[in-house]
Amino acid sequence: MYTYEYLKDFTEKVFIRMGCNVEDAQVIADVFLSAELRGLSSHGMLRLKDYYQLWQANRINVNPAIQIVHETPSTAVVDGDRAIGMVAAVRSMKIAIDKARQCGTGWVSTRGSNHFGIAGYYAMMALKHDMIGITMTNANPLVAPTFSLTRLLGTNPLAVAIPAGKYPPFIADFSSTPIARGKLAVAAKKGEKVPYGYVQDKNGNPSDDPDILTRGGSMLTLGGDYEHGGHKGYCLSAIIDIFSAVLSGANFGPFVPPSVVYLPVLENKVGEGTGHFFGAMRIDAFQTAAHFKEKMDDWISVFKSAKTVSGHPEVLIPGEPERRKEEKIRKEGIDIIPSVVKEIKEIADSLGVEFSADNLD
Amino acid sequence: MYTYEYLKDFTEKVFIRMGCNVEDAQVIADVFLSAELRGLSSHGMLRLKDYYQLWQANRINVNPAIQIVHETPSTAVVDGDRAIGMVAAVRSMKIAIDKARQCGTGWVSTRGSNHFGIAGYYAMMALKHDMIGITMTNANPLVAPTFSLTRLLGTNPLAVAIPAGKYPPFIADFSSTPIARGKLAVAAKKGEKVPYGYVQDKNGNPSDDPDILTRGGSMLTLGGDYEHGGHKGYCLSAIIDIFSAVLSGANFGPFVPPSVVYLPVLENKVGEGTGHFFGAMRIDAFQTAAHFKEKMDDWISVFKSAKTVSGHPEVLIPGEPERRKEEKIRKEGIDIIPSVVKEIKEIADSLGVEFSADNLD
Repeated sequence: MYTYEYLKDFTEKVFIRMGCNVEDAQVIADVFLSAELRGLSSHGMLRLKDYYQLWQANRINVNPAIQIVHETPSTAVVDGDRAIGMVAAVRSMKIAIDKARQCGTGWVSTRGSNHFGIAGYYAMMALKHDMIGITMTNANPLVAPTFSLTRLLGTNPLAVAIPAGKYPPFIADFSSTPIARGKLAVAAKKGEKVPYGYVQDKNGNPSDDPDILTRGGSMLTLGGDYEHGGHKGYCLSAIIDIFSAVLSGANFGPFVPPSVVYLPVLENKVGEGTGHFFGAMRIDAFQTAAHFKEKMDDWISVFKSAKTVSGHPEVLIPGEPERRKEEKIRKEGIDIIPSVVKEIKEIADSLGVEFSADNLD
Repeated sequence: MYTYEYLKDFTEKVFIRMGCNVEDAQVIADVFLSAELRGLSSHGMLRLKDYYQLWQANRINVNPAIQIVHETPSTAVVDGDRAIGMVAAVRSMKIAIDKARQCGTGWVSTRGSNHFGIAGYYAMMALKHDMIGITMTNANPLVAPTFSLTRLLGTNPLAVAIPAGKYPPFIADFSSTPIARGKLAVAAKKGEKVPYGYVQDKNGNPSDDPDILTRGGSMLTLGGDYEHGGHKGYCLSAIIDIFSAVLSGANFGPFVPPSVVYLPVLENKVGEGTGHFFGAMRIDAFQTAAHFKEKMDDWISVFKSAKTVSGHPEVLIPGEPERRKEEKIRKEGIDIIPSVVKEIKEIADSLGVEFSADNLD
C-alpha cells in the first residue's frame, strides 16, 4: 500500500529523469494518480512501464513544442509534437477553457499526441471555472464496426463533466464499447469466459472467449450486435474518431499508433500521432451558474429518488462510483499489485530514483 | 402510393389551415417528408394526427414568438414559446449556424418546444455551409436508467452530420436506446416477442414482451443491462437530457411533456416544454474544408474496404441505409398504410383540405 503523496512525488521524479520539465512531470503524475484514486488502476501506475518503454524507443517526445496551428475565437487545432498524451491534453484543455472565457465556448482538436490516460481528468478541469467539460480521444484499433471483421476503431471514450450545487458534479467517462479492454485481460488471466456481446471471432461469430483478440477476433461496439443496437455504438465511436483525428489531422481509425512498445510503429500513417477533442462551455453562456447548479441538484435528486431494482439501494449518478472509490482509497492507500511494483522498481533503479517496496504498511 | 410533392404540398396546407404562417408550414412539411423519404415513417405522416390533436387541445402554439433569451458570441438559449418542434428547431439551428459563421462554432439550447420529428434533419442543415451539425433532444420518459424501475429518460437521440467530398456526407442519427419505441409497437401488433435487452418488467427483470410498457415495464438504455454496458447508454442519454433541458430551462427527464394528446399534461413541471440542443462547427475553424473533405473521403473509403461478416457485402457508413431508402422511395413513391390514410383523410375533411386516397396508382 502506498500513499497518494508518495506515488505522486515518485512519478514526478521518474518523468523528470526521463527529461520532462517539472511542470509537465507534475501534470503527468497528477493524471496517473487521479486514475489510481478513482479506482481505474488500468490507467494508473500499471502504465508507467509502457510510457518508459515508449520513451526509450524514442516514440514520445519529452520536450515537445506544443502549438496552436489554426484558430478562431471559439476553436483551435493543437499540434502536440509527439508529446506524452497528458501534456498535450492539459495544454489543449486549457486553450478550450480560455476560449470559452472569451466567447462562451471553446473547442480544440489535437493531433500529434499519444495515449493520455483517463479522459475524465481533462473534462473535470472545466468544473472549477463553472464550465461543462468535454473530452474525447481515439485509440488503438481493437474494435470492429457493425458487420466488419477488420478492427477499425479504438475503445474511443467520451467524458463529460457538469457542475452541480450541493451535490458533487456529474462526471460521465465511458468507452464506446460494452467493456474496457482491461476486463478481457482479467478474464483471460483467470481462465474465465466473458458474456456474449463483448467480442466476436475472426469470422464475426458471437464469442465468449476473452482471448479472442489474439486469434483474429475483435471487440464489439456499445450495444453489441446489430440486433441490440451495436450500430449506434459504432456511430458514437466514429464521431469520436472523426472529431479527434480528421478535424485535427491526426491518424484516424486503424492508423492510430500503438500505445505500447511491443506493437510496432505502423508503416502507413494518414496524419500525426493520436487525436483528441476537447470542449469547454461556460455555464453562464446559457444561464447563471447559480441557477443552473440548483437545477442540476434537482435533476440529481429526482434520479436518486427513483424506485430501484431489488438489491440496488439507489440509482447512481455518473461519477458517483469513482468518487466512492476515491474516498476509500484516500483513506486506505493505493494498492499496487506485486508484479507492477516489481516493474516500477526496475524503472526506478535504471533511472536512479528511489522506490520503496511499500510505504504504508 | 404518393409522390413527395403531393404529400409536401398537402402537409403545408394542413398546417396553414391550423394557423401557421406559410414559412413555418413549409418547414414542418419539409421535416415530415424528409422522414418519409429516409424511410423513417414512424416520424412522418403517421404523426400528423398527433400534431393535429395537440393543436386542437391547445397544447402547441401555431403563432409562437420564438426568441433568444440569453446569448454570447458562440451560444444562445432560445425560448420556443410552445412552438411546433420543427419550427423552434429550425430557428435554433439557424442561430447556431450564424454564430458559427461569426466565431467558429455555435451552440444553442432550446426550451419551450415540442416534439420535433427526426433529429438528423437539423444536423444536416449545417452541411451546405461546410459545417458539422449536431442535434440532441430529450423526449417523453419511457426509459429506466441502470438499476431504476422508474422511467426517467426518453429515447433521447443524438444526430451528427459531417460533410465529405466525393462521398455523400456522414450522417449519424440514433437514439440512446437499443431500439426506437416504434419497433416495440410493431412487434406487439404482430404478436411477436422481442430480443432480451430492449425492455425490463416492472421489477427490473429481463423481458421479451414488447407490450411490457403498458404493465409498468420500461425500455433499457443503449447497451441493455449493466453487464453489457447499459450504464454507458444511461450516461449518453443523461448528457443529452442535461444539454437539452437543464442548460435551456426546459423540462428534464421524467417531466418532459407528452407528445401525444392521449397522455395528460403533467401536473408538475420543472421548466418550459421540451428541450433541444444544437451545434454547428465551421470546418474551416479547424482546417480548410477542401482538405477535411479529402480526409473524410479517405476515412469512408478505409471503412468501406474492410473485410466483412459473411452475407454483408460492405461496412455501412452512418447515413447510408437511409440514403438508399431515399433513392428507392423517390423513384417508387411514398407508401402510407391504409389506417394512416384514413386518419389523414379525416383531418383533411375537418380542415377543408383536399386529400386523395392515392395519387400515384
